[in-house]
Amino acid sequence: MTSVDLNADLGEGFGVWELGDDAAMLDVVTSANVACGFHAGNPAGLARTSRAAAERGVRIGAQVSYLDLAGFGRRFIDVEPAELTAEVIYQIGALQALARSAGTDVGYVKPHGALYNTIVTHREQARAVAEAVHAVDPGLPVLSLAGSVFFEEAERLGLRTVAEAFADRAYRPDGALVSRREDGAVLHDPEQIAERVSRMVHSGQVSAVDGSTIDIRVESICVHGDSPGAVQIATAVRDRLLRDGVDVAAFI
Amino acid sequence: MTSVDLNADLGEGFGVWELGDDAAMLDVVTSANVACGFHAGNPAGLARTSRAAAERGVRIGAQVSYLDLAGFGRRFIDVEPAELTAEVIYQIGALQALARSAGTDVGYVKPHGALYNTIVTHREQARAVAEAVHAVDPGLPVLSLAGSVFFEEAERLGLRTVAEAFADRAYRPDGALVSRREDGAVLHDPEQIAERVSRMVHSGQVSAVDGSTIDIRVESICVHGDSPGAVQIATAVRDRLLRDGVDVAAFI
Amino acid sequence: MTSVDLNADLGEGFGVWELGDDAAMLDVVTSANVACGFHAGNPAGLARTSRAAAERGVRIGAQVSYLDLAGFGRRFIDVEPAELTAEVIYQIGALQALARSAGTDVGYVKPHGALYNTIVTHREQARAVAEAVHAVDPGLPVLSLAGSVFFEEAERLGLRTVAEAFADRAYRPDGALVSRREDGAVLHDPEQIAERVSRMVHSGQVSAVDGSTIDIRVESICVHGDSPGAVQIATAVRDRLLRDGVDVAAFI
Amino acid sequence: MTSVDLNADLGEGFGVWELGDDAAMLDVVTSANVACGFHAGNPAGLARTSRAAAERGVRIGAQVSYLDLAGFGRRFIDVEPAELTAEVIYQIGALQALARSAGTDVGYVKPHGALYNTIVTHREQARAVAEAVHAVDPGLPVLSLAGSVFFEEAERLGLRTVAEAFADRAYRPDGALVSRREDGAVLHDPEQIAERVSRMVHSGQVSAVDGSTIDIRVESICVHGDSPGAVQIATAVRDRLLRDGVDVAAFI
Repeated sequence: MTSVDLNADLGEGFGVWELGDDAAMLDVVTSANVACGFHAGNPAGLARTSRAAAERGVRIGAQVSYLDLAGFGRRFIDVEPAELTAEVIYQIGALQALARSAGTDVGYVKPHGALYNTIVTHREQARAVAEAVHAVDPGLPVLSLAGSVFFEEAERLGLRTVAEAFADRAYRPDGALVSRREDGAVLHDPEQIAERVSRMVHSGQVSAVDGSTIDIRVESICVHGDSPGAVQIATAVRDRLLRDGVDVAAFI
Repeated sequence: MTSVDLNADLGEGFGVWELGDDAAMLDVVTSANVACGFHAGNPAGLARTSRAAAERGVRIGAQVSYLDLAGFGRRFIDVEPAELTAEVIYQIGALQALARSAGTDVGYVKPHGALYNTIVTHREQARAVAEAVHAVDPGLPVLSLAGSVFFEEAERLGLRTVAEAFADRAYRPDGALVSRREDGAVLHDPEQIAERVSRMVHSGQVSAVDGSTIDIRVESICVHGDSPGAVQIATAVRDRLLRDGVDVAAFI
Repeated sequence: MTSVDLNADLGEGFGVWELGDDAAMLDVVTSANVACGFHAGNPAGLARTSRAAAERGVRIGAQVSYLDLAGFGRRFIDVEPAELTAEVIYQIGALQALARSAGTDVGYVKPHGALYNTIVTHREQARAVAEAVHAVDPGLPVLSLAGSVFFEEAERLGLRTVAEAFADRAYRPDGALVSRREDGAVLHDPEQIAERVSRMVHSGQVSAVDGSTIDIRVESICVHGDSPGAVQIATAVRDRLLRDGVDVAAFI
Repeated sequence: MTSVDLNADLGEGFGVWELGDDAAMLDVVTSANVACGFHAGNPAGLARTSRAAAERGVRIGAQVSYLDLAGFGRRFIDVEPAELTAEVIYQIGALQALARSAGTDVGYVKPHGALYNTIVTHREQARAVAEAVHAVDPGLPVLSLAGSVFFEEAERLGLRTVAEAFADRAYRPDGALVSRREDGAVLHDPEQIAERVSRMVHSGQVSAVDGSTIDIRVESICVHGDSPGAVQIATAVRDRLLRDGVDVAAFI
């Protein structure tokens, strides 16, 4: 039986500011990418999200980022690799302590935003992040894009790599994501998205923005928690996969 | 044979900014209170300090603080207890990950600056900090002031409390420290300070600012790392204790 | 004809995070207390709010705060007066430049959150804020609570003080606000609030939380922008005042 | 008579952390590039620097930066132009208010660190900074590198551009600076630096790192305030220029 994980970004408020409907998303996803305070997430908010995930049996991942609250981690920062390694270790450790005090633990690491995009191709930063994860725990899987330089570096260190596909993001013919700054980068129709995900999971293929068909390795599906209609989209994806007979469960 | 620990605040630079001579202090002290990024300490700096401490066999403690880089953690912040608990868990976890990747670990927790002073008497915040330490690891000792409300709360949770005395700070007759905002709060003469510490360790007594003699419980001596002449003072204290036949070693 | 100003806090998002419906509030109020980046408000957001206020002819005030994004400026910080003065000057100047580049200007200063509450009674911080406003422009009015130590200090320096009343906050018998941490601190029913404001404006009196009647000086009414139903409440207040024949206009 | 301005970065501490010897540098330079809080400089520190500059008759410039305290503004950030424009306006305005309350004013704008380097070639960010300066005051000169895209954009808006040369930085054959990450990027010998500056000012030429001679437009000489021996270097440069009969004075 085909099995796939469903992940979303959670815990991305900051103090008085909220973002997305964490409670509703936790009823849909099997893995929660929880912010670590560098692009979002004050400690008390992260503690609440960790407890809520623990209560629902949703696995927690550390969503590590550039230090950039003002830009929500969406802007490339030309940070030195040694600094980046230390920043990622710091973030994972901080979330581990909060997760453990909530009765759960950090089960994987997923880079966020501009860091995610950068280390698809930026070898020095990719290596810096992989080394950070390895330094904290060589048994921690990393969740990101198949074919990325980040996965090369992670695998070189013996880390388990888990490939994700994006439910609602347009792909370029080379398998990269269309930039959020371009039109058509984000899909919005729940049924269209669910149909697309169903095809991804069953055929390992997706239509790129130019109409071409590309191969895609899918162990987890990323649904976004902060876009309008996020919960409906995630629910549509989950329902479709269950109807297809897919086992929606955290990756092993 | 009498034994006493010697602790100092380290890792208190931030990025390009340096503070104190960490390398020199690590040759003198037996316990290093390492900042955790909330009042000082960027991750790469904390990683360097952790490695340097590990190399010299100096034990690391998490120096937890209010979130206040601009004020170096020296200003009271009326933070909610639940927020404070989460902030302290976050800080300890972050430093644990950095320390472990440097081949050592966090061996104790010491509150910093205004948080330190506040929880001598502020029960809600004292309890919040004690609960944070307990949530991370009930076996982590806390280093602070004997007789403080913080120690009451820590002991109520079964935490080991380690009482420290200040080598270079003036005491009030009630055993509290004279505020840094007042004249005479900080002593500067290395020999006078060494003499004073010698008396503290041997007799358990110190002269208060009004000339009266007060009792003081001393398992660790705090020497400051950021004052002018800090290294000379710390060295004078250590040399004097060794000459006195005291075993200068990390508390057990 | 009686005239009263209607003010609300605006521009209180931060980067990706939004708070309240600024556009809708700008159609209701006559004075916009715009955040200055210390408790909320990234520069691009403040520029947008400034332009939107300028387009609608709504006057802008600088909503100055403690430096505390994580706490939204709602936590007392024991900052030194000289530091606070410089921080308030910095904030006013930053917003002035953004407001002027948007074709308007900062027309008054209103302290935010914990700073607002603190300087009702804390003379050193009150003086620090008053001196900052005076240093920037002795012609800038300050908007706050009648009877506050802040007003005493402001008037001592010759600043114009504008007294505000709170549409939706409960009052203690001594004229202070009931703390947000207590039940019943915030009122929610639009009609009840509008009725209460109408009485305040016409009689200069309001019922305190214990049922007693207290006198209240009202040149401006503060409606909150970030509470649920904020726009409906503000609209109900404005409509009621207009029906009463009151001139709703920016204070002179 | 040849005249040249001497500028240095000042006010680059942050709270408890100090950087460089501002008092000594203010006795040497004619223009002080004062930090604005985004890469360094808390408001109270900036107020002190502004007062000290005013007392000595040294002109103040706003040293605007990416928002990056952790990286001291030395890391490229891929910030959106509209955000950057607002951030630069915010910084200039904040420093203007502090400078004016110190009895002086902001006389020019100089980008800092990575922003300085980026807008030598990055047109969108260059335009964003130029538009910010123009929005605050079309009469404010900008201090930067001749031949930069930033100067093109600034001149397109009618801003006065003032070309600076670096006393202690190595040049590439194309006139760009050698990156700080490379060996030999920074010169250290005061006499060698003074000799080099003397040649720059008299001949408009400098030797590049490959030995070739390049033309250089010099209205101001930048001496660094934070390098070891900064004051000696600046003094050597100033003394040499005075001995050469050059008028060391703020640019007009």
